[in-house]
Amino acid sequence: MPPEVLISEVGPRDGLQSVKATMATADKLRWLDALHASGLREIEVASFVPARLLPQMADAAQVVRHALTLPGWTVMALVPNRKGAEAALRAGVHKLTLPVSASQAHSLANVRKTPMAMVDEVREVLALRDAVAPGVKVEAGMSTAFGCTLQGDVPEDDVVRLALALAEAGVDDVGLSDTTGMANPAQVRRLFQRVFAEIGAKTGAAHMHNTRGLGLANCLAAFDVGVRTFDSSLGGLGGCPYAPGASGNVVTEDLVFMFEAMGVSTGIDLPKLLAARAPLAQGLPGEPLYGMTPEAGLPKGFVQESTHV
Amino acid sequence: MPPEVLISEVGPRDGLQSVKATMATADKLRWLDALHASGLREIEVASFVPARLLPQMADAAQVVRHALTLPGWTVMALVPNRKGAEAALRAGVHKLTLPVSASQAHSLANVRKTPMAMVDEVREVLALRDAVAPGVKVEAGMSTAFGCTLQGDVPEDDVVRLALALAEAGVDDVGLSDTTGMANPAQVRRLFQRVFAEIGAKTGAAHMHNTRGLGLANCLAAFDVGVRTFDSSLGGLGGCPYAPGASGNVVTEDLVFMFEAMGVSTGIDLPKLLAARAPLAQGLPGEPLYGMTPEAGLPKGFVQESTHV
Repeated sequence: MPPEVLISEVGPRDGLQSVKATMATADKLRWLDALHASGLREIEVASFVPARLLPQMADAAQVVRHALTLPGWTVMALVPNRKGAEAALRAGVHKLTLPVSASQAHSLANVRKTPMAMVDEVREVLALRDAVAPGVKVEAGMSTAFGCTLQGDVPEDDVVRLALALAEAGVDDVGLSDTTGMANPAQVRRLFQRVFAEIGAKTGAAHMHNTRGLGLANCLAAFDVGVRTFDSSLGGLGGCPYAPGASGNVVTEDLVFMFEAMGVSTGIDLPKLLAARAPLAQGLPGEPLYGMTPEAGLPKGFVQESTHV
Repeated sequence: MPPEVLISEVGPRDGLQSVKATMATADKLRWLDALHASGLREIEVASFVPARLLPQMADAAQVVRHALTLPGWTVMALVPNRKGAEAALRAGVHKLTLPVSASQAHSLANVRKTPMAMVDEVREVLALRDAVAPGVKVEAGMSTAFGCTLQGDVPEDDVVRLALALAEAGVDDVGLSDTTGMANPAQVRRLFQRVFAEIGAKTGAAHMHNTRGLGLANCLAAFDVGVRTFDSSLGGLGGCPYAPGASGNVVTEDLVFMFEAMGVSTGIDLPKLLAARAPLAQGLPGEPLYGMTPEAGLPKGFVQESTHV
């Protein structure tokens, strides 16, 4: 039996590109080895963007090539456009993820295109994928799906319409991201239910942030309505530029503990996952890592009965 | 319309008795004023225990008398036994809360009595209440209901049987406490559903800890199955002796933000609640305060539409 939920680790991409320091390539590879050893089955390892914009990701191709030597997991990369997709496909990734903002204001500010115009960009990437690597999956990660610091509310109709346009364009799945930490459990249930109703099995990951402490509650809410893929970041690395001291991404360790404690299998060995913090800390000296479960430790007598590890 | 959930602030009792420093009485009263101004409708202000055991609570009667001058909220005190109850009733509290441990090992270690023997202690307090202050409510707060650091698992049957015995003894409500931070949302739903089935409307508060980051997810789970009273502590003060750096009690600010963001009214004004951190910090210099919402701030354009403030 496969695990019941898929934990998609985004730390090597979302986390490392959010910190000032650049982790040395050798340290990244050691960290990937430790993450792989824990049983993770999906990982976002890099962004394919110009190195002058994100020097932390200059070794993306090398990192991908190493990740591909480790068996049994899906190696993903973020690509902002066709050019990035070409480089990622050349490196051999199993899956691409393309960010598309649901907020008009956020989309215009970041890529000078409306959300619907971004769907054309996604179509170009899909055409490229079909031509050169038809086995590669393409995910659209919809940012600001639950609110935007620029425009405030993001109408749910806009999110649903964009999800449908992306699904019709041919992406394999559409994830919803709480980029700004504004989501709440009622909204998460409502919005994922609407997206499921519109695009069915193409409904993808819940990418929740812990900005206001609601990260796990929002993941629980998404699970309750059928979401089975969850993005998170070891040590909560990354994701939150504007709330100093507050972690951005949901902490993988806490998320896996929650599901395993509930008897929902993740396929991940918790002690090995906790051990993967050491190479991360070694590669990023001085960078704060978050997580309540790592601080408190596993409960006395805790047994991962459910997990197929 | 009354608010949909009742937030029961336990910081002045659970929080202050867990820190080493003793807050000066005048500082406590200023803090209570600020908490009252936020719209809180229930507060646990003190423990009535010998001052040599808990010097932080030596001014319990004075604190209660001040709290009683503030209108519109229920003033509670924790009492471990009949002697404490006498003092608390003399001071004039509206409600007593009695701790009863569901774990045999924890109960024997702490009070040298089995959980069922503690029900006799509760009966004595109820008889006293009936005799001298029949209008006062009595809650039993069942600690270690979700697990115990001494004995590990606490059988759910033990919890349900104890809840029934307490309800039959005549308490007004029975709360369930995750004293050790071992609860998970599936267990919270299952156990509260069983307790509701057994004692109906006498099912009381969910007292959750954030030891492993699951505090809000567990509150959401309890809300989903009908719990409408939630214990929490401003700044997450108190509750966790064994996980340094990890907050124990659920943070009131984050809990209120979660419910208000969901459109579930609490009756509490969030900016005023956040402002109540200042007198707490002034009264306990150097003590760390927790909370993600206070660090991140309220989302841009956030309006408390639901709250009757």
